[in-house]
Amino acid sequence: MKDEDKLTKIRHSLAHILAEAVLNLFPETKTAIGPAIDNGFYYDFEFVNNITEKDLNLLEKEMQRIIKLKNKFEKQEIKELEALKIFKSNPYKKELLEEIIKNNQPITIYNSGNFSDLCEGEHIESTEEIDPQSFKLDRIAGAYWRGDEKNKMLTRIYGLAFSNKKELDEYLEKRQETEKRDHRKLGKELDLFCFSEIVGAGLPLFTPKGTIIKDELQKHIESVCRRYGFEKVSTPHLAKIDLYELSGHAKKFGNELFRVSSSAGHSFVLKPVQCPHQTQIYASRPRSYRDLPIRYMESEKQYRAEKTGEVGGLTRVYAITVEDGHSFCRPDQVRQEIINMVNIIKDFYTSLGLWDNHWVSLSVRDYNHPEKYIGEATDWDECEKILEEIASELKLDAKRCEGEAALYGPKLDFMFRDALGKEIQIPTVQLDFATPKKFNLIYKDKDGSDKNPIMIHRAILGSYERFMALLIEHFAGAFPLWLSPVQVKILPIGEKQFPYAKEIADELKNNNIRVENNTDDETLGKKIRQAKIEKIPYLIVLGEKEMTDKMITIEERGKEKGEKMSLNDFIEKLKTEIKKAKN
Amino acid sequence: MKDEDKLTKIRHSLAHILAEAVLNLFPETKTAIGPAIDNGFYYDFEFVNNITEKDLNLLEKEMQRIIKLKNKFEKQEIKELEALKIFKSNPYKKELLEEIIKNNQPITIYNSGNFSDLCEGEHIESTEEIDPQSFKLDRIAGAYWRGDEKNKMLTRIYGLAFSNKKELDEYLEKRQETEKRDHRKLGKELDLFCFSEIVGAGLPLFTPKGTIIKDELQKHIESVCRRYGFEKVSTPHLAKIDLYELSGHAKKFGNELFRVSSSAGHSFVLKPVQCPHQTQIYASRPRSYRDLPIRYMESEKQYRAEKTGEVGGLTRVYAITVEDGHSFCRPDQVRQEIINMVNIIKDFYTSLGLWDNHWVSLSVRDYNHPEKYIGEATDWDECEKILEEIASELKLDAKRCEGEAALYGPKLDFMFRDALGKEIQIPTVQLDFATPKKFNLIYKDKDGSDKNPIMIHRAILGSYERFMALLIEHFAGAFPLWLSPVQVKILPIGEKQFPYAKEIADELKNNNIRVENNTDDETLGKKIRQAKIEKIPYLIVLGEKEMTDKMITIEERGKEKGEKMSLNDFIEKLKTEIKKAKN
Repeated sequence: MKDEDKLTKIRHSLAHILAEAVLNLFPETKTAIGPAIDNGFYYDFEFVNNITEKDLNLLEKEMQRIIKLKNKFEKQEIKELEALKIFKSNPYKKELLEEIIKNNQPITIYNSGNFSDLCEGEHIESTEEIDPQSFKLDRIAGAYWRGDEKNKMLTRIYGLAFSNKKELDEYLEKRQETEKRDHRKLGKELDLFCFSEIVGAGLPLFTPKGTIIKDELQKHIESVCRRYGFEKVSTPHLAKIDLYELSGHAKKFGNELFRVSSSAGHSFVLKPVQCPHQTQIYASRPRSYRDLPIRYMESEKQYRAEKTGEVGGLTRVYAITVEDGHSFCRPDQVRQEIINMVNIIKDFYTSLGLWDNHWVSLSVRDYNHPEKYIGEATDWDECEKILEEIASELKLDAKRCEGEAALYGPKLDFMFRDALGKEIQIPTVQLDFATPKKFNLIYKDKDGSDKNPIMIHRAILGSYERFMALLIEHFAGAFPLWLSPVQVKILPIGEKQFPYAKEIADELKNNNIRVENNTDDETLGKKIRQAKIEKIPYLIVLGEKEMTDKMITIEERGKEKGEKMSLNDFIEKLKTEIKKAKN
Repeated sequence: MKDEDKLTKIRHSLAHILAEAVLNLFPETKTAIGPAIDNGFYYDFEFVNNITEKDLNLLEKEMQRIIKLKNKFEKQEIKELEALKIFKSNPYKKELLEEIIKNNQPITIYNSGNFSDLCEGEHIESTEEIDPQSFKLDRIAGAYWRGDEKNKMLTRIYGLAFSNKKELDEYLEKRQETEKRDHRKLGKELDLFCFSEIVGAGLPLFTPKGTIIKDELQKHIESVCRRYGFEKVSTPHLAKIDLYELSGHAKKFGNELFRVSSSAGHSFVLKPVQCPHQTQIYASRPRSYRDLPIRYMESEKQYRAEKTGEVGGLTRVYAITVEDGHSFCRPDQVRQEIINMVNIIKDFYTSLGLWDNHWVSLSVRDYNHPEKYIGEATDWDECEKILEEIASELKLDAKRCEGEAALYGPKLDFMFRDALGKEIQIPTVQLDFATPKKFNLIYKDKDGSDKNPIMIHRAILGSYERFMALLIEHFAGAFPLWLSPVQVKILPIGEKQFPYAKEIADELKNNNIRVENNTDDETLGKKIRQAKIEKIPYLIVLGEKEMTDKMITIEERGKEKGEKMSLNDFIEKLKTEIKKAKN
């Protein structure tokens, strides 16, 4: 038996044990259903009186007592009449039973200790197999019987359960860490973004600090892309629906499109993607084979009408600012273009420390169903081969995934893992044979003939909003120096140090370092505590001695001991650190 | 008699002379009306056969012949019957005559030469007073009788007329220059922006070169504003209508608002201004008197539903990217805040060479109608006084304009002149006592009480789209070095110089200089001519000699002679020029 199967049985058995414990302590309760789930189990009950979090402790103790009794789980197939007798006073079990009878299925119950449950299984042999410290009753929630809001609201008790106490503790710790890092919580604490009721949900406003992070990401990604020949463009957020009818996005996004109108009869849509607009810049002039590759990038907002109830934080919003880019090239340029794009992704994710833990899905077509794809088989063969060669040449940890290609071409999808092990799947390089044809994009080839360029889509960080949420959680708010809204905070010990503090602040500003000078009337201890909550990378403490020596004392985030140095040396240190991260 | 009145009489008389010439050459023609207008005159005719541009030359000669006859203009009051007899075969004059009769007005005609016209005047005494070289028939256009499209379409002949030939020539030259500088024409020629039928009119797409100008302007303005303590924010383009109902903009913009909806029932508007969103960032946290001033800036799109038929170029578009900023401050900080803002405007316009030719409207309230304004008279008095003091302190060329204040506070409006003398009226600094109250913006004062901050609005370049149109026309596409999309173009004489050209291009790129390397298979002469059309600030010509000497030859835009120097010296020269412009 696999460990996983065993754990599922333990979890399911714990659900029964919970029900037994509930009936021991609250005998009037009616049981409904109780399955194993990811991380544990739950059971739904109809209590006579509401229970509280405190009762969970009592129930947990009762479950531990039951477990120690070494009860066996016994399966029993019973007859209709007997079953109806056993569950006659429980409307939920009766309803389930009637369905089983109607479907002519066998009726099985599981008995353990004092408890019998209508159940298909499976269970462990005996409660002996459960480590009494490996589970924990987690929380109480409301749940409609069978998930239907027209039914009665029951009380669901959730439990966490793992193979042993160590695994349970690890899970709890990780969950706590995840909650602590929640970007909505940290975003507020670190004053990175806010919401306004009168502006509306799903519409984040970036404060000065959040805007710095957004801008630094943009400056960095644009600078990396420029190294590889990308040119920035800027396209409007509105378009006639015609644009998306031609591209196919009108059909694809359907109800998710925002419509724009005026009382004077204007009719537009808010753009759901950037690609079609960029094709129109390509199309604005005649292009020759010598002009290619033409590479555009932009960071503009795009809009999706997310469901009202589902918006929240930075991950579900109505408008995302998408960093999107495309290369229009000749067939003989595809190879170099893809290498460029992979290198951009590598450079960018390396600067965030995420590259070392990557894998790549080399998404090719489903060879059994060529009819599902657009374009010539020979083009596909050629491009898939190029992708494979590049993956091996650039030593990507690539896995060939058949049937994962896009409708219009094969692609490379990059996966990373954040600090808590969650998979990040954002960057992608996609070949597209179809769009240039749809938009009749042309270049004049060497022989004078008109050809369609190949379009290659590439995403690097995707949307700034989602990427910031990801970074806030990955770094738990302790951003690398180059991304930190405040890079240095100056903490003068007293008023006597204020002029020296200002002098230092000005010099740092002149060197493009983002600095704050805390001249509040507070103790140094309080100032340091505050700065640590703000996760500032470097603190400068200024006292009598520093003033006399014309030196500064640096406290680096995460380091125990302060270090004394000259301001010039400190500025050099900062510049080196920033430059290193970005290269 | 003023010169202006005299000129109007000459123009009106030229209209009569034109009609006389037309009847001399095309006797079957029916005359309609012919007034003096700005720059000249026109006359509407019903011709039997269409006339052409060629006929204008003949008519011009005929007019010059008539002028030389020294005909007198004689006014004559005539009776109803006589008038009806004179104009009986002209339906247009008859219609006008019938109205005069109906209104019991005197019927006057003017006679000169062979021509009599129903006319109130006024005219010159004699055609002697007209310099025959001071006018020119300009163009033919269609015009409905009395401007009503239900009426017959007539032929309008436009004439230009000035006091003398010199003035006419100056006008023609300026008009030609204006046409040459038209931003729509240059925008296409220099490949700065484009339009797409399928995206829609009024929605410009910025190409790589146009985006560079937009971004350079933004980087520069943000850097200037940061020097004065402004922090960048970023707010969404959507909001619930509630936001603008509270701010008053919903009423103000009415039909100009774009409505956003989805099939799922979302309902938003596209923001017509930035201010309300920025108040919501202020309102997102408790603020203390110590936190003020809080200064926000942003460059985001705002939307107005311009009339479909009126959009065009970069000046009438559906979305403008507005650089907008606000300071929220205490009363005792107003003075310094305004000084900061004036200095920002001064720094920014100085870097474009426009500051030297400015004047400022110091717009105060209409003291006879205090009821037209919001806020306390004492606040107004104080703030108007501060504006006056600042204007004198900073030696602004300020003119006090009573009644020009905004509803919510006094302001400074800055006026400049572009290269053709057209007035530019963009920057403004406006005090606002009302908005913080509307949005219940609060700070905790030293004494613990809640106070409303004063909000100061400031615009510097306004919208990037309109400002770029203005700059394109002001510089006629020959942008200063720091704004030029391509700063340096390398022109290797032959293939032998290609490696050296690439080496130089790379080095320039490493120094953040925007460079293009023309390796097309063309003659040097053609390459130079092309680069001059593109108005590139610096050309580097590379021949045999330059390669041997490890030097480069620089051709600076607008200078006759090339200059030989080392690449390092050239890079230093460029950096100095850019830095100087921005300081």
